[in-house]
Amino acid sequence: MATMQFWYDFASPYAWLAAERLAVNTDIAVEWIPFVIGPILRLRPDNPSPLQNAPPAQRNYRRRDVERLAAKQGLGLRWPSTYPRNGLLGARVSRVVPVGRRADLTLAIYRASFVEDREIAELDVIKDVLERAGFDAQAILTAALADGNRKALVADVDRAIALGIFGAPSFVVDGELFWGNDRLDLALEWARRPWL
Amino acid sequence: MATMQFWYDFASPYAWLAAERLAVNTDIAVEWIPFVIGPILRLRPDNPSPLQNAPPAQRNYRRRDVERLAAKQGLGLRWPSTYPRNGLLGARVSRVVPVGRRADLTLAIYRASFVEDREIAELDVIKDVLERAGFDAQAILTAALADGNRKALVADVDRAIALGIFGAPSFVVDGELFWGNDRLDLALEWARRPWL
Repeated sequence: MATMQFWYDFASPYAWLAAERLAVNTDIAVEWIPFVIGPILRLRPDNPSPLQNAPPAQRNYRRRDVERLAAKQGLGLRWPSTYPRNGLLGARVSRVVPVGRRADLTLAIYRASFVEDREIAELDVIKDVLERAGFDAQAILTAALADGNRKALVADVDRAIALGIFGAPSFVVDGELFWGNDRLDLALEWARRPWL
Repeated sequence: MATMQFWYDFASPYAWLAAERLAVNTDIAVEWIPFVIGPILRLRPDNPSPLQNAPPAQRNYRRRDVERLAAKQGLGLRWPSTYPRNGLLGARVSRVVPVGRRADLTLAIYRASFVEDREIAELDVIKDVLERAGFDAQAILTAALADGNRKALVADVDRAIALGIFGAPSFVVDGELFWGNDRLDLALEWARRPWL
């Protein structure tokens, strides 16, 4: 059976909803790949960043949509008092922890932002999240902020562009791209058996 | 149980997929409301029309996404040789037929565009679709092109804006808005019982 790549940005509430669902998925092997979508959106003439350009009706809708979906998943969403939050630090940190612990840390960072309304772009907050999750926070942060890790994240963004990724979350199965939390079930089904 | 409004634009392949699913839905009463999303998108500083502004990666993705979804629904999609097609004439025509026959005609127009690759913005094509569906084509077209019907469609677009609609398809249940074919199941579930 195919494995699935899960490309996620800590800014995205939909990526959080997908992460919560993937954390309890059992039958498909998932590669968790933190990245940032901002540099990809900024390449577009029409930057569709939720903060900058969506009209009020769509912004209001997005929040209500996430509230409805979170409630269905039994998640205690508290809408971030600043939105969207910058997911860069979260991406840098979660990509340097051992692969086997990345899902746990990813959920911890997402919940700090979307359940506890904490500013995950701040070092102190991430340090606290790391400590509560049982990591050597100082060692992780040193690795996360190293220049090599910054460059590796940039390379991952380039890899995302090469895969055709233009939004987050995205799922890739054998080169087949699926965009959005609402395509997660289809992506998993594709990983079990492509139908086209 | 609540009824559901289904707002659809003949330009949208996702609205077509939703229409095909709604046509076989049985437990929720659905009000089929043809409209055009173009005038709403043009109010935005960043017109997100699929033709005008989406980057190539997203346009390629959209087509593949629709192909995958159509295949899952068992529909014989042929991607329109001109895309997106102007859905204005289809909206004008389908809103003047009796309510009880609107779903049938809607499906016939969608299939002309997305299965038979016919130019549904042309009068001759719509006339033929009407005739094959057993309508008095000339009478329907006369009513569709009358000034009162043009104004009534404009009023429906204003009604859509008042409901917070910013894309197509959209579903509205007791003022609760759901956007996109991928929210249809949630909208139907909401009509059965809201969970928030």
